[in-house]
Amino acid sequence: MTDLKAGAARYAGARVHRVEDPRLLTGHGTFVDDVVRPGMLHACFVRSPVARARITAVDASEALALDGVHAVFFAEDLNPDVRESWYTLLGRDVPDTPRPALADGEVRFAGDPVALVVARDRYVAEDAADLVEIDYEALPPVVDYATAGESAESVHPEHPGNVAGALDGRPAEELAPVFDGAAHVVAATIHQQAYVPVPMETRGLVAEWSAADGELTIWASTQAPHEVRLFCSRLLGLPEHKVRVIMRDTGGGFGQKVIPMREDMCLLLAARKLPAAVKWIEDRRENLLSAGQARHEHGHARMAFDDDGRILAAALDYVQDAGAYPSPSPLFSAAAVGMLFPGPYRIPQSTFSVRSMFSNTTGRTAYRGPWQFESVAREVLLDRAARQLGVDPVELRRRNLLRHDEMPFVNPNGMPYSDMTPLETFEHALEILDYPAFRKEQEQGRAQGRYLGVGTCSYVEPTASALGPHATEGATIRIEPSGTVNVYVSGGSTGNSLETTTVQLTADALGVDIADVNTIQGDTAVTPFGGGTGGSRSGSMIAGAIAETATTLRDRVIAIAAHRLEAAVDDIELAASRATVRGVPESGISLADIAALAYFQVDALPPGVPAGLEASARYRAQAPMIWTNATHVSTCEVDVVTGHVRLLRHIVSEDCGPMINPNVVEGQIAGGTVQGIGGALLEHLAYDEDGNPVSTTFMDYLLPTSAEVPDIEYGHVESPGPGPGGYKGVGEGGAIGAPPAVVNAVADALAPFGVEIGRLPLTPATIVALIEEAR
Amino acid sequence: MTDLKAGAARYAGARVHRVEDPRLLTGHGTFVDDVVRPGMLHACFVRSPVARARITAVDASEALALDGVHAVFFAEDLNPDVRESWYTLLGRDVPDTPRPALADGEVRFAGDPVALVVARDRYVAEDAADLVEIDYEALPPVVDYATAGESAESVHPEHPGNVAGALDGRPAEELAPVFDGAAHVVAATIHQQAYVPVPMETRGLVAEWSAADGELTIWASTQAPHEVRLFCSRLLGLPEHKVRVIMRDTGGGFGQKVIPMREDMCLLLAARKLPAAVKWIEDRRENLLSAGQARHEHGHARMAFDDDGRILAAALDYVQDAGAYPSPSPLFSAAAVGMLFPGPYRIPQSTFSVRSMFSNTTGRTAYRGPWQFESVAREVLLDRAARQLGVDPVELRRRNLLRHDEMPFVNPNGMPYSDMTPLETFEHALEILDYPAFRKEQEQGRAQGRYLGVGTCSYVEPTASALGPHATEGATIRIEPSGTVNVYVSGGSTGNSLETTTVQLTADALGVDIADVNTIQGDTAVTPFGGGTGGSRSGSMIAGAIAETATTLRDRVIAIAAHRLEAAVDDIELAASRATVRGVPESGISLADIAALAYFQVDALPPGVPAGLEASARYRAQAPMIWTNATHVSTCEVDVVTGHVRLLRHIVSEDCGPMINPNVVEGQIAGGTVQGIGGALLEHLAYDEDGNPVSTTFMDYLLPTSAEVPDIEYGHVESPGPGPGGYKGVGEGGAIGAPPAVVNAVADALAPFGVEIGRLPLTPATIVALIEEAR
Repeated sequence: MTDLKAGAARYAGARVHRVEDPRLLTGHGTFVDDVVRPGMLHACFVRSPVARARITAVDASEALALDGVHAVFFAEDLNPDVRESWYTLLGRDVPDTPRPALADGEVRFAGDPVALVVARDRYVAEDAADLVEIDYEALPPVVDYATAGESAESVHPEHPGNVAGALDGRPAEELAPVFDGAAHVVAATIHQQAYVPVPMETRGLVAEWSAADGELTIWASTQAPHEVRLFCSRLLGLPEHKVRVIMRDTGGGFGQKVIPMREDMCLLLAARKLPAAVKWIEDRRENLLSAGQARHEHGHARMAFDDDGRILAAALDYVQDAGAYPSPSPLFSAAAVGMLFPGPYRIPQSTFSVRSMFSNTTGRTAYRGPWQFESVAREVLLDRAARQLGVDPVELRRRNLLRHDEMPFVNPNGMPYSDMTPLETFEHALEILDYPAFRKEQEQGRAQGRYLGVGTCSYVEPTASALGPHATEGATIRIEPSGTVNVYVSGGSTGNSLETTTVQLTADALGVDIADVNTIQGDTAVTPFGGGTGGSRSGSMIAGAIAETATTLRDRVIAIAAHRLEAAVDDIELAASRATVRGVPESGISLADIAALAYFQVDALPPGVPAGLEASARYRAQAPMIWTNATHVSTCEVDVVTGHVRLLRHIVSEDCGPMINPNVVEGQIAGGTVQGIGGALLEHLAYDEDGNPVSTTFMDYLLPTSAEVPDIEYGHVESPGPGPGGYKGVGEGGAIGAPPAVVNAVADALAPFGVEIGRLPLTPATIVALIEEAR
Repeated sequence: MTDLKAGAARYAGARVHRVEDPRLLTGHGTFVDDVVRPGMLHACFVRSPVARARITAVDASEALALDGVHAVFFAEDLNPDVRESWYTLLGRDVPDTPRPALADGEVRFAGDPVALVVARDRYVAEDAADLVEIDYEALPPVVDYATAGESAESVHPEHPGNVAGALDGRPAEELAPVFDGAAHVVAATIHQQAYVPVPMETRGLVAEWSAADGELTIWASTQAPHEVRLFCSRLLGLPEHKVRVIMRDTGGGFGQKVIPMREDMCLLLAARKLPAAVKWIEDRRENLLSAGQARHEHGHARMAFDDDGRILAAALDYVQDAGAYPSPSPLFSAAAVGMLFPGPYRIPQSTFSVRSMFSNTTGRTAYRGPWQFESVAREVLLDRAARQLGVDPVELRRRNLLRHDEMPFVNPNGMPYSDMTPLETFEHALEILDYPAFRKEQEQGRAQGRYLGVGTCSYVEPTASALGPHATEGATIRIEPSGTVNVYVSGGSTGNSLETTTVQLTADALGVDIADVNTIQGDTAVTPFGGGTGGSRSGSMIAGAIAETATTLRDRVIAIAAHRLEAAVDDIELAASRATVRGVPESGISLADIAALAYFQVDALPPGVPAGLEASARYRAQAPMIWTNATHVSTCEVDVVTGHVRLLRHIVSEDCGPMINPNVVEGQIAGGTVQGIGGALLEHLAYDEDGNPVSTTFMDYLLPTSAEVPDIEYGHVESPGPGPGGYKGVGEGGAIGAPPAVVNAVADALAPFGVEIGRLPLTPATIVALIEEAR
């Protein structure tokens, strides 16, 4: 971060107010549903009412007769126009799963889109959708992914056996001697229920085709506008520069909006056949029905220990539900589950076997820490081990957690850890808790019939992985003629404060007042290509892009200042939008005056300094990935009569490297943690045995509210990563670490009953049943 | 143009179809009145009904009581908010003329804006404007600029004597011996009437204040969006990056839209006081009443000749009408009249005296070739001289016109001519005409009582003057990941085909197919700062900006191609969006594949080549100005009974250097020529003796139509200018050269009557009167 150092960082690290907030808090955000276009039409989908059936006949005549209906599209109208449907993120050559626009011949989950209705408003479109007649011939569905491999039925005929992907680590036999010879072997099977991102803003799209210009403009709720643009360009065979994707504000994505899905494809395909812009806004029912599920998986985990509680080996057999139409290559997240199972522990040997199975349910989607089952399996297993070995679970972990001075460290599955502080972060979390005091309180509570528990989860997280389009990030910085600054990054506002981050870092890099910096993001016609928000990459990558780009400009500003002030370049200091000669504070020249020279008095520029103050550059990731680690500690009290879990404290101690803005870091942690708590205790995207979804409203799909979540306490340990500023990723961690900590706390509370937890979520009924079973 | 050479120019020079046309011809252009914003309000002005009066009382109560009226603003509401009102084009320190937002205390011309009414729609606003009561106390107006210097009244109290500006060249006494001793001295006083740009789209503005973001967005009909932005930023004290100016299509400007005027100031000042966007669209009456006049001027011109008809000296005394509120520094155009009076002729000595006088009429505005009176005075005088000396006017010019081999040449007023072909261009025009044949036809005609005439006008034009913000022009070029290209220049579509120019030059510079190039212009939030369209600068400056910027990218593309194709950099050729090894056409790699490497496979890039394919640079003008020259030849037949002038042929032979696109060059010439013909024959923005405008509709203000204008014939002589590609300016010339050619043709036709022309326009009544007088 040489370039940042010189700027005498004033803003990076500070609790700078979010620049997004005035807009968002006063209701002036622009989400997709805020977009209104001349003569805009509205779309809705006709969806399959059953999990699996053959479509035998369709009839839109009644729907089309309704006043205000413009079109009803079926698979035959849209699907043949698809040119290519692969994602930039994975590239053309990665094996992929099926992705028709509309269901063609067979519906494969309840909610599968069969027809697209376009009308003058949404009311008419919905009424018309009711009038579209579709005849189905029922087929036996494959509802349970766990038994899908043995089913005679295939979700997709081209995938007999219903395997979407599978990967094995080192042959399990090779570890057999270790397990056989170990002092202790602990095993557990853990099931995680399906739960989902449920962003505040559901999916949605406005697509407007301009025949005169041959241009398609798309307003999208997305985490990656450039992915939408490239995908659309390939889908329709349009030149990339004739597709414009605009996202001003996106109301959360959490993985669900990383890539365009089938509904998006339908809108893009339909747009060129319509006389005006068309809008589709997903309603909440649709979001729960068809925007994908996550976390639906189970694993059999094993660890071998020596007499001192040191881990000798780890093994995981893992199966996940890919649903019918998963996000591309579900195998990626499955593989990560296996690779990361050893976590932040000093484990010499490991193996895994992972499988992703199709089922007739909504497709698996990415969701904040898509591989987080590795933590659930490992951390729940470690608490079980502690109980079996008769060791305090904190003590057991202390013996095995990696220390900062052991980095770099290659985990037994080949993951090249670096720049982490697992033990240090763990100890810091326990210090915040005052672990001995809690144990005392727990003991006193038990004496009074109160069941308190504490659980921890420590994990490592690969952030900003430098794969394909994620390996670089670009920025354009323009110091305007009056000396104010515009910064262009792909970015976009999805709730992760990238605008604030950009403005802070640019102000520091150029030594300007933060009020003089503005950032323009989320418009592919305007910003450089960007990999989008996902994989906890945006912060560190955009920091790199800004550092890389600002350096050129900074040098130019300093050269002009040195020339005007008749000083050596090395003696010029930039701060508060002013250049001064070191030690001569009264000597300065303002950035406004420097800019006026660069634009309007170019004859007065020093030799070799070009006119203008604009630069574009791309940052290349300095490492294949940047490693982050954290420990969550959760405490709770369980009402053993009602089964209600009351969370008492939730502590997150993390090492995300230097913090650009502690407010933003804490916001990211809090959001993920609340989602993790919801996953541990409440949320469940459930299906009945026929494949009918049973939680398609927020009355059935339970989200945590502020009443269920304690104030989150934060601890920070800092080891810089390899990139500019040493920044590391922090976006996903909360959702990874919270569930095992909560589960372990509940299990700890219920330890007196001999309860072990193997299935989420921990609803009151589940807890009562567990206690009953154990009694 | 080294960088263009390598691209083996395929598009530059070709008659490429305009990329603006599909949009414009199908009615999909976006002019200001096409902009609709949520809850948008509409404004109209209450204007002074008299030329000069004191405002004694104002009362808006009745207007405000009307349903739908939001506000009525007077000077006291808006004027105090003005922070600064100087223009970037001239800088802060150039002496300027008054510019209040609304009339304060005194109205100074009929049409002077006194109040701004804002209502829910334009109808209500107009009704409310009628209800605003303003009491005036009449003051004696200064109507005639020619006698304004002797008036006891002052248009502006701070300018007693009504002088807006004055400049004298060399002392006239110094030339007295030359004139006294010359074989011939010819003198004439020529009066040019007021005529105006009348763009198809009148002025207009939508201004929307976002209190949440502190941002003002302006949709403007402008020639210079960045000037509007900087002006607004200073006017309101807003940071430049918090002001966004968008112009998609502007329906012509011709100088009238180079800078924001008083009405624009009012809208900008009002915007922050209103709850929603506000739109003002000038109607045609307002445009003719208050958008400014031009050409209103006269001069006494003298030339001394030797016995052979060689010009020994030239002198001009010139006075122009500045009106009440002129565009800034009318002295600039007045000075140019004096400096350029010697034109393309070999004149050893010269002097001039110019004055700009205030009057109680609409303010003088820039208009295509604002100094063109120099040509009118000179060329009309030369024809008079030919008649007095008894020499053919063509022969007289031949003896005096500069040749290309005499360049560079400094005219006697110090103007440093270069790269011109006055004599060559003149001869080429006469060749197209077949001058001897026309003289024969004329002679035959006269024998039959038909009065034919021929007139010429040769002029030189300084284009792309490198003053202040006009000295540079910037471009950003982004080769997108799929290999298509976006080019960002300030530009904007004002009818001068800058989008087409940009796309052509970029395609050549990068060796890509023109369909792969898109340009984004006219949005200050998106493009680099640009000086705007004016002074015939855009073509050559944008050519420079593209050449400068593309070079970096081209080098990068070639480096990647050489690395992949295992060839030397010097052996790589770029054409048709493909890099090949010279002589091995089958060896290629597409630009799409090169771009994919640059963005997605950065590890495969050659060492030292950065990721991405984006560059920004600014071009610095290579000379203080670029010189263009042309000759217009006009022939006509005059009906000596009715006074009607029928134009027969109009030939324009010019040297604008290499043509980027002959279609565009000819379009520019044709447009200007038609305006010049209108000025010579029809158009007159007249006032009565009390200062009341008498031509405020197109029934009174007569524009030429296709019925009055002959097909224009084009000739091209080519001497490259100093910048990349050798391109020179051509935007203004038509309007400069046409009037004198037409006037001379009419005078030539009427020569048998002994008529000399000293006053424009040449309406039938004028011609009949001239013939009567001469008889």
